[in-house]
Amino acid sequence: MLEDLKRQVYEANMQLPRLGLVNFTWGNVSGIDRGKGLFVIKPSGVPYEKLKPSDLVVVDLNGKVIEGDLRPSSDTPTHAVLYRHFLKVGGITHTHSPWAVSYAAAGRGIPVLNTTHADTFYGEVPVTRNLTANEIQGDYEKNTGKVIIDTFKKQHLSPAAMKAVLVNQHGPFTWGKNASESVYNAKVLEVIAEMNYHTLLLNPAIKPVSPQLLNKHYLRKHGKNAYYGQKNRLGKK
Amino acid sequence: MLEDLKRQVYEANMQLPRLGLVNFTWGNVSGIDRGKGLFVIKPSGVPYEKLKPSDLVVVDLNGKVIEGDLRPSSDTPTHAVLYRHFLKVGGITHTHSPWAVSYAAAGRGIPVLNTTHADTFYGEVPVTRNLTANEIQGDYEKNTGKVIIDTFKKQHLSPAAMKAVLVNQHGPFTWGKNASESVYNAKVLEVIAEMNYHTLLLNPAIKPVSPQLLNKHYLRKHGKNAYYGQKNRLGKK
Amino acid sequence: MLEDLKRQVYEANMQLPRLGLVNFTWGNVSGIDRGKGLFVIKPSGVPYEKLKPSDLVVVDLNGKVIEGDLRPSSDTPTHAVLYRHFLKVGGITHTHSPWAVSYAAAGRGIPVLNTTHADTFYGEVPVTRNLTANEIQGDYEKNTGKVIIDTFKKQHLSPAAMKAVLVNQHGPFTWGKNASESVYNAKVLEVIAEMNYHTLLLNPAIKPVSPQLLNKHYLRKHGKNAYYGQKNRLGKK
Amino acid sequence: MLEDLKRQVYEANMQLPRLGLVNFTWGNVSGIDRGKGLFVIKPSGVPYEKLKPSDLVVVDLNGKVIEGDLRPSSDTPTHAVLYRHFLKVGGITHTHSPWAVSYAAAGRGIPVLNTTHADTFYGEVPVTRNLTANEIQGDYEKNTGKVIIDTFKKQHLSPAAMKAVLVNQHGPFTWGKNASESVYNAKVLEVIAEMNYHTLLLNPAIKPVSPQLLNKHYLRKHGKNAYYGQKNRLGKK
Repeated sequence: MLEDLKRQVYEANMQLPRLGLVNFTWGNVSGIDRGKGLFVIKPSGVPYEKLKPSDLVVVDLNGKVIEGDLRPSSDTPTHAVLYRHFLKVGGITHTHSPWAVSYAAAGRGIPVLNTTHADTFYGEVPVTRNLTANEIQGDYEKNTGKVIIDTFKKQHLSPAAMKAVLVNQHGPFTWGKNASESVYNAKVLEVIAEMNYHTLLLNPAIKPVSPQLLNKHYLRKHGKNAYYGQKNRLGKK
Repeated sequence: MLEDLKRQVYEANMQLPRLGLVNFTWGNVSGIDRGKGLFVIKPSGVPYEKLKPSDLVVVDLNGKVIEGDLRPSSDTPTHAVLYRHFLKVGGITHTHSPWAVSYAAAGRGIPVLNTTHADTFYGEVPVTRNLTANEIQGDYEKNTGKVIIDTFKKQHLSPAAMKAVLVNQHGPFTWGKNASESVYNAKVLEVIAEMNYHTLLLNPAIKPVSPQLLNKHYLRKHGKNAYYGQKNRLGKK
Repeated sequence: MLEDLKRQVYEANMQLPRLGLVNFTWGNVSGIDRGKGLFVIKPSGVPYEKLKPSDLVVVDLNGKVIEGDLRPSSDTPTHAVLYRHFLKVGGITHTHSPWAVSYAAAGRGIPVLNTTHADTFYGEVPVTRNLTANEIQGDYEKNTGKVIIDTFKKQHLSPAAMKAVLVNQHGPFTWGKNASESVYNAKVLEVIAEMNYHTLLLNPAIKPVSPQLLNKHYLRKHGKNAYYGQKNRLGKK
Repeated sequence: MLEDLKRQVYEANMQLPRLGLVNFTWGNVSGIDRGKGLFVIKPSGVPYEKLKPSDLVVVDLNGKVIEGDLRPSSDTPTHAVLYRHFLKVGGITHTHSPWAVSYAAAGRGIPVLNTTHADTFYGEVPVTRNLTANEIQGDYEKNTGKVIIDTFKKQHLSPAAMKAVLVNQHGPFTWGKNASESVYNAKVLEVIAEMNYHTLLLNPAIKPVSPQLLNKHYLRKHGKNAYYGQKNRLGKK
């Protein structure tokens, strides 16, 4: 079942090592079929070089396995929470990419210091609060999802414009309209984290870009007035 | 039309991923035919692995498309301004290479701290002022070009000796006598930005090299008394 | 003799350059046959690209060569001490990987600042004291082993839960149930050292993760209640 | 003439890009035939991917071209000075490798902070003083050699035990018994520069290793009592 989606999610997972975003098995990508209310996710702990499309696991929005011989990613409950609350999200990526983890572990969000950031993320990439002892000892992966949702609520963020979060002391989750776009956003996040770090050390007093520059760059790539790329041309896809 | 130039500009564009200067589609190279007053530039948002020489777009010095099925780079108006004002420039490269962006985002130029820098750039690589809200909300890419021109005027810089600039909060533009040389300069800029960063952290009080050392290194590679390489030998090209 | 073990230890050694953990010949992996009381180790100074399984040297727990035409790694006495005291260890890796050495040379352990660390190492990775002049001028490599053992005793550490150490001013030793796992731990150590460094520079006042988060991540991958990966599933290996 | 030496020096030059030590043409290796008083060096500005053994240039100890169609490296007079004063040196490498340049540009030597350093360099890698305006405007490359010789004299250093130097604001020169060993030392220098940088940022108050540790590591790899590797075994080469 969901063979096309499995193929897409498989290809997206295989992008993680190619883009230098994972060591060993430390990452996972999922993609959802909103009509069926099911999503497809990488199995837990399977090395990328051995992963096959048929290894992918189909789960429902409670994270229950519907199809598949292997145990799904241990982060499946986090994906499920995000799909339940972020209704337009079609794909989710989680990695332990080193620059994003460095910020997450420092408990710092990533401010918008340059246009590369503004091209993809519409504002400072938020960092969650730490989970409480109870949240950790309880349903940990589900609570990881909840703390992300809380962060977006408290900071009045839209998952459509801010497609990334840093879970404090843990690492990044990114999303997009499908699995492939969530991987793209994971790579952009890693690149801007690296740039931000060096900028902050060069100029600790640096301020974020103006709302005008943020708008200009974000909106030339997103939304109905976007003019970057070939997609919005008349007669073009 | 301009098939030779398209081939050269195509090859120069393809050097960007090989030299580690771009992620995804975040870069573009152009080259000009001064006789015809037309330049050739990468189409917007086309992945390097799919780019073909015939995809390149021919535009005039106002950035108007003269030939090509695809939309040109969104940065085309910036290239056009540079070609109109820097009359000896034959090729231009724009990237979001991480070390150069780190400096641009910090609002800092790159001082000449070593001979590797002096071999290619005749002085501190300048950073522009920020664009104003009006400049951003108006003809943004054109105004990006204008602020570069202003920077060169105010600092009395010659584009023949200083072939790079950092646009504040954005990133680098480099140029040269043709597309290929502009890519070379983009790579040198990235390398010296990295070296400078580490030097500044090792010795925050470090001063630029002397005018004598700057002259020695720049002029042994450039101008009629250059003695580096094979080009200036009698009977050699 | 010990042909299977030689093959395993050979494969583990060859992982070092593939994982970017060694330059030149600066690393060695060993694996032990506890029944026979013999271990197999890389020969000293042999380049990885020339290494063959038959080059590996069989030594006893005093480091005496039992089989092999080549001299064993100069670090063999350190391995021997570790095998004699850490009775469940099946394989040991030593490298000069740059991030781990940077911490060792700074005389700093690596605190648990994120879950990537907690997934593999159950607490701060310890750094030994410096060896004394006498220890250096005496049986240096054996004393290197002794100072590791002392560190674990003084800090009440278990080699089953803390599978890495930084020898002060020198570099890392890691271990595991076999040679391959010791290499895995060497790579994880390098990755977390890099992440920790950037986190510490982003937030010098950062505190380690809570005991709850450490327990959660370590124990979801280790021990009888582990639920990461496919190994603990009913009917699965 | 000197065909064997040309082949060796060619191979050593080709190691520079493989070891990540050069961008473009920014490096050169030479090797000497002490009996004939001639050395072989890379031609100036020839890309590594086009370099052939027959392109190498034979020069005498004054840097005069004895054989070859191409102009020798612009750094040839520096090599000549080093060969004239460091009588046991058989090969010399010059690069602009980024970590070594970062230290050179900071005007800082590289202190011995770890055993990886002590394994190859017997003490702090020295940095020269800056060249004077006269030295720069006069016979610059020859004076670069002279300032290296002066540094060794003033600091009472032996080129047999300290096979590297940082020319202030410029970059590293390394040497060895032949061209290949000088390249090896160039790579070690780059690796230890990177490690030292991170160590200094982790612990700005860190002190160099003890003389005992320096001796132990240097002498287990060098001299008649060396016991690292296979070279000193009875019946082995």
